[in-house]
Amino acid sequence: MTVYRPRAIRNLIEELKHLPGVGEKTAQRLAFYLLRIPKAEAERLAQAILEAREKIRSCTVCHAITETELCSICSDPQRDRTLLCVVEDPSDIFAIERISEYRGLYHVLLGALSPLEGIGPEDLKIRDLLQRLQEGEVKEVILATNPTLEGEATAMYLSKLIKPLQIRVTRLARGLPIGGDLEYADEVTLLKSLEGRLEI
Amino acid sequence: MTVYRPRAIRNLIEELKHLPGVGEKTAQRLAFYLLRIPKAEAERLAQAILEAREKIRSCTVCHAITETELCSICSDPQRDRTLLCVVEDPSDIFAIERISEYRGLYHVLLGALSPLEGIGPEDLKIRDLLQRLQEGEVKEVILATNPTLEGEATAMYLSKLIKPLQIRVTRLARGLPIGGDLEYADEVTLLKSLEGRLEI
Repeated sequence: MTVYRPRAIRNLIEELKHLPGVGEKTAQRLAFYLLRIPKAEAERLAQAILEAREKIRSCTVCHAITETELCSICSDPQRDRTLLCVVEDPSDIFAIERISEYRGLYHVLLGALSPLEGIGPEDLKIRDLLQRLQEGEVKEVILATNPTLEGEATAMYLSKLIKPLQIRVTRLARGLPIGGDLEYADEVTLLKSLEGRLEI
Repeated sequence: MTVYRPRAIRNLIEELKHLPGVGEKTAQRLAFYLLRIPKAEAERLAQAILEAREKIRSCTVCHAITETELCSICSDPQRDRTLLCVVEDPSDIFAIERISEYRGLYHVLLGALSPLEGIGPEDLKIRDLLQRLQEGEVKEVILATNPTLEGEATAMYLSKLIKPLQIRVTRLARGLPIGGDLEYADEVTLLKSLEGRLEI
């Protein structure tokens, strides 16, 4: 029986399957799409991947992604240096910057504490964080780790370390998402929104 | 206000957004994934895209994708040359080959008739198909175009062209998908499955 699978496309499908959320069928659909479009367009995607890996690196201060030694936020004199927002991943900065409200600096931990996965404090950029705080400029640290078990544990751990430094420590509010439906809210979210209820 | 978006990642996200089913958020997730994994792995994906575009071409006989002049199915002497399965796209061959049941040859139309999109018979590989049939070896043509409006119209059009050549023309059965639920079947599918009911 002929196995009808030219090697180059089999290989492309295998590589695409490594992408998050991409299974066999999606990989195949993407591979055929990449064969169907103009060659130049497919090459642009390949070049964009290579170029991103070539040029993007980690900001030496906050560990955000950047093309320069210091990221554009750390090197922006307009930013409020008394406010520091701590996030798990570089992509979280994108989400916060999108709302155009926050004017402070960031610090990326590059993960969250997870005993199950063997990720301890020394695996995260916590030492760097404390060093930045000891410079004395920061007046408030906003813990913006994810509202997950690991994110909450990381926030608790950090707040214990930071509070003795006489710095205000806050955490993003947990509660009902806007546009959501009370009926479908999970119990923990509902509990948090009740605990965090505000005077109107 | 700093716009925090290094150019290389903005560019990568834009290119990823061209992929089918990939919106802004998925593109961003994929881009950050490609930055997080080992550099060699990201480069392998880029190379796989470039290599596929370099090596893959269309089989000169059936228009399937291939790395050689003739695809591995057309050049396989074990294949039954009296059976010809007509499909819309090269990827459809993958789907049929996966069930390891069909032993004949294929012919790819590279699309389906669609007056709305301005795709007429001359835009498909129909002339090539008739030429192959006129060689006299094929005894049955299986029309395996998609069960869509365009696919059905294409099948009807082809059957009218092929029947005068004294060749048996068949069409893949339409009916209830296995594992589906009668209650949720759409009306057209249910109608087709009733029309095509079989003696048990």
